[in-house]
Amino acid sequence: MHTYEAQVEWTREKQGAIKGPNKADISMATPPEFGGPEKGFWSPEELFVGSIAGCILSTFLFFVEKSSIGLVSYQSTATGRLDKTSEGLRFQHLGVDLRITVKTDKDREKVERLKSSLEKYCPVSAAQKQPVHLELNVETTN
Amino acid sequence: MHTYEAQVEWTREKQGAIKGPNKADISMATPPEFGGPEKGFWSPEELFVGSIAGCILSTFLFFVEKSSIGLVSYQSTATGRLDKTSEGLRFQHLGVDLRITVKTDKDREKVERLKSSLEKYCPVSAAQKQPVHLELNVETTN
Repeated sequence: MHTYEAQVEWTREKQGAIKGPNKADISMATPPEFGGPEKGFWSPEELFVGSIAGCILSTFLFFVEKSSIGLVSYQSTATGRLDKTSEGLRFQHLGVDLRITVKTDKDREKVERLKSSLEKYCPVSAAQKQPVHLELNVETTN
Repeated sequence: MHTYEAQVEWTREKQGAIKGPNKADISMATPPEFGGPEKGFWSPEELFVGSIAGCILSTFLFFVEKSSIGLVSYQSTATGRLDKTSEGLRFQHLGVDLRITVKTDKDREKVERLKSSLEKYCPVSAAQKQPVHLELNVETTN
């Protein structure tokens, strides 16, 4: 059992700060389309999709070590689409696009087989009602 | 319809960066109990519970404006408990404790009536399979 915490405080207007021990504060605000400031702040919605993509990265790095994958680079984009529903605004689509470069064709095959393991072992994406769609693009440097 | 994005990159070892346009990068890493560095990084799990608490704050501030609540201060702690299950590690408890100070008894009554609206209108907590338990503590300065 592991417990994870974060402190969130209101600072002013539609702004807040996310804090944790020995970590840099994160300035957050309501997104501009709901009355928050135009620029410079993370919205909770962006942090949410970022936390999903961060969990996918963290899960991926576990398998990189376990399977001795020659990782060169890893970039990802997380997307969440919020739609009006009869129950209020709801995330109707969640996805993470991964662009991964590895050393060899063998590494590429290993990564391509990982998709279902990432879906299964990332606890943040597994906590969502909606499935998190993963799109894997793998290249090699050779 | 609104779409939210975040970029997540691998930087080195078990570390990464979360990026977005016009926003400060967030340094993230696998938590220490899963082989990440001991200190100084946000884990995806902490960012996840932070995004839930941030969404609750943002939803709360919407009602503060709408109902002209005299808000003095707002602090919250988000907690997520990860347990081993037959399916892997899963969040088995998600909660946010709110400590709110308002100006008058009338403001306090308004805030105490908001709990179900926060649960209903925060899209991040509504996206979770597990219910997000809210604990509301409201004080007045008078």
